[in-house]
Amino acid sequence: MNSRISLWLLLISLLILALKSPYANAEDIDLVVSADYVVTMDDKNTVIDKGAIAIDNGIIVAVDEQALINGKYSPTKRIAGENRVLMPGLVNGHTHAAMVLFRGIADDLELMEWLTKYIFPAEIRFVNKEFVRIGTQLACLEMIRGGTTTVVDMYFHPKEIARVMEECGLRAIVGAAVIEQESGYTKNFADAMNKAESFIGQWKNKNNRITPAFAPHAAYTITPDNLKIVRKRANELSVGIAIHLSESKAELKLVGDSYGETSINHLEKIGFFHGPTIAAHVVWPTKAEISILSARGVGAIHNPTSNMKIASGFAPVPEMLDAGVAVGLGTDGAASNNDLDMWDEIRLAAYIHKGRLLDPETMPALRVLEIATRVGAAAIGLDDTGSLATGKHADLILVSLDAAHLVPMYDVVSHLVYAVDAQDVQTVIVDGKVLMEDRKVLTLDEQEVIKAARTIAARIDKEIRATR
Amino acid sequence: MNSRISLWLLLISLLILALKSPYANAEDIDLVVSADYVVTMDDKNTVIDKGAIAIDNGIIVAVDEQALINGKYSPTKRIAGENRVLMPGLVNGHTHAAMVLFRGIADDLELMEWLTKYIFPAEIRFVNKEFVRIGTQLACLEMIRGGTTTVVDMYFHPKEIARVMEECGLRAIVGAAVIEQESGYTKNFADAMNKAESFIGQWKNKNNRITPAFAPHAAYTITPDNLKIVRKRANELSVGIAIHLSESKAELKLVGDSYGETSINHLEKIGFFHGPTIAAHVVWPTKAEISILSARGVGAIHNPTSNMKIASGFAPVPEMLDAGVAVGLGTDGAASNNDLDMWDEIRLAAYIHKGRLLDPETMPALRVLEIATRVGAAAIGLDDTGSLATGKHADLILVSLDAAHLVPMYDVVSHLVYAVDAQDVQTVIVDGKVLMEDRKVLTLDEQEVIKAARTIAARIDKEIRATR
Repeated sequence: MNSRISLWLLLISLLILALKSPYANAEDIDLVVSADYVVTMDDKNTVIDKGAIAIDNGIIVAVDEQALINGKYSPTKRIAGENRVLMPGLVNGHTHAAMVLFRGIADDLELMEWLTKYIFPAEIRFVNKEFVRIGTQLACLEMIRGGTTTVVDMYFHPKEIARVMEECGLRAIVGAAVIEQESGYTKNFADAMNKAESFIGQWKNKNNRITPAFAPHAAYTITPDNLKIVRKRANELSVGIAIHLSESKAELKLVGDSYGETSINHLEKIGFFHGPTIAAHVVWPTKAEISILSARGVGAIHNPTSNMKIASGFAPVPEMLDAGVAVGLGTDGAASNNDLDMWDEIRLAAYIHKGRLLDPETMPALRVLEIATRVGAAAIGLDDTGSLATGKHADLILVSLDAAHLVPMYDVVSHLVYAVDAQDVQTVIVDGKVLMEDRKVLTLDEQEVIKAARTIAARIDKEIRATR
Repeated sequence: MNSRISLWLLLISLLILALKSPYANAEDIDLVVSADYVVTMDDKNTVIDKGAIAIDNGIIVAVDEQALINGKYSPTKRIAGENRVLMPGLVNGHTHAAMVLFRGIADDLELMEWLTKYIFPAEIRFVNKEFVRIGTQLACLEMIRGGTTTVVDMYFHPKEIARVMEECGLRAIVGAAVIEQESGYTKNFADAMNKAESFIGQWKNKNNRITPAFAPHAAYTITPDNLKIVRKRANELSVGIAIHLSESKAELKLVGDSYGETSINHLEKIGFFHGPTIAAHVVWPTKAEISILSARGVGAIHNPTSNMKIASGFAPVPEMLDAGVAVGLGTDGAASNNDLDMWDEIRLAAYIHKGRLLDPETMPALRVLEIATRVGAAAIGLDDTGSLATGKHADLILVSLDAAHLVPMYDVVSHLVYAVDAQDVQTVIVDGKVLMEDRKVLTLDEQEVIKAARTIAARIDKEIRATR
């Protein structure tokens, strides 16, 4: 080794030491967010008092006490505030976003009557590209304002949905609706598959936030042969599937009459679960079927409001969690909810199983918060979000504890589950980008979206009144 | 009849005609409140588009279309606004207001364990006059901000409670807690009765908004002889009684072991229902017991959050309503809820019975809104509030429909039950007096109350941590 190389090596070594030394200059990064309480929802559900997280290029680079983060990083932007909780954004595992335009159009009805007499006909008459674009914008507005950062959507015109989700900055799995009957969007199953594949081709690997998927409606509306085709094409294209599953007793009767099986057994027999699957509802699984979901790694999305409102029933969520099923939480569409408020679902997931099982210790606050964040993210196959941990996407929210209904506070996790409302969410960040700051949404023109939504709804209202 | 009398009669007749004529001067009154939708909750559940109500001396003098009200009345003050709903204030039929200071202190526990290991000991250590005063102020702040105008409270130091309720402007039935065991407030039953009677003597007929009552805890904590004394003294003093009743299976076991009866049968046998009674919870009545409640005119207050959270169960509310029981809705205290948000209770009352009975048509939106307003007011014996009708107290709220989660709107009643949140309430009026206008509370110093509450809670938190 000659002396010139030795000198160079010495200089490089000194430089490395200097960078690693506590006396070195702080590292330049994009963003530091601080709060009085950081509820990380990491694998140990760590809570850090006076904590902060460092974010660069949309990724969390450190989660620690404020003093340590501030000493180590020099951010372009800082977000801080008194009396706030920093936590992962909420993961809405099942919705039909654009259906906010049908919010409250038909209440207090049973699932099949609601679907066949009100929703399917309204969809045929009113759902077009503009409906989906404006409806999804309105839904994103509501979701951002309520602290949702990731959403699994299933609806028509998925290219419109994906474009809106991309523009407004949310993380989304966009499931292209696949049905057999004619709709305003597709003529038949083949047409639905063609359109879904065209969408998937366009969005696959286009944007790290938008993940395309197939969304066949349900086992009672699509034949086994066609469901097998969906699974085959999904696996060939390396995308997942979202489906409604075992939602109501009426579904069990339809599937039983046609195929002599309950829904989950039926899909297991045709090999439908051989690939990533997100199953919404799962209200009526047998014990054996719960084992199938667990063994196949199917994510089960609990939608407590919708399941009660259309009287589908109470999903056996603690039982599924105990059996190792990956459970997530969802709002369903606003036609059966009637909002996209994940805090309502959190509270209900904590309450209803205690009431149903007469067991006050089931679904404790922390477990519910898990299915709304880290566990819910895993259930939809997005392990890279749902918690505040190094290397994860910077998807996070700041919740204010200032409102009277949050005073006093003894336990931050209890407050997040049992007392916080959507309107307490102050700031929302996805992929390191600020979507809402101090309740001002930055990625959508709120007044324009609301105005456009009201214009469409006025048209729908007028037509419905004229024909009833 | 002589001509002078005739002339006088003619003049008087002309004067009457002039006053009744549309060309006469408008009548001077205190207040007119207008809104795009007036959901009156009167006996016919009338909804008036572009409606208004006229208020004078705290009483509703007219409810009609805006054009008619504006032509007829000349108010000192007008409250109007775009895109709002005017409706009666919510009636919270059961709470322990001051317990907001125990919000989230012990979650995910069964009723008896929660009561005996956490709540009773905490009450003995921490509940004093200051606790009750500040706690009740904080609760009133939260209730006003959420659109509650009438509340039934049961707690210690009722003189403090009544004073705070009077000052902040709410309508309240204040039940003086009567227990047998020693507490920080009373030594034994006789002491509790003396203090309750002193309170009732002080507040009976003092203020039309504050109604004193006895509040014996429950059939499993007070002996039959003492319950008979409470009933006797209540009837002698012409006041009502509020009590916890048939709340949990654990209660049924205790009452059964002691008296060989279920709670309601037990109280019926000792004549406890012979006088105005407000029964909180009523989760486990038999069919025969439901008939007793109906026949005796006992008001049954449904507390869905609390009943699920401490796993008491699901009260048979549709069954009670069908049997003619006057049912109201309540939050219970914030130690078992963990907030005083009546909109949560409204939604739950609409959802859980659909889920439990697998009947999507049970507890439709309008029926739920009734038990939160007019029917709930009747259940607590206050027929003079709970609806917007001529002659009733002017207890009303304005709800904004501006937020994204309320866009679009097809059905105003559906929105109030299935989508509105506490924070959508803009303006609250009780007895014709404005308690909150455009989300600014006028009768309490919000920041001072929150500061005082946090100071007390910090002391409690420190002591609990030191002894656990």
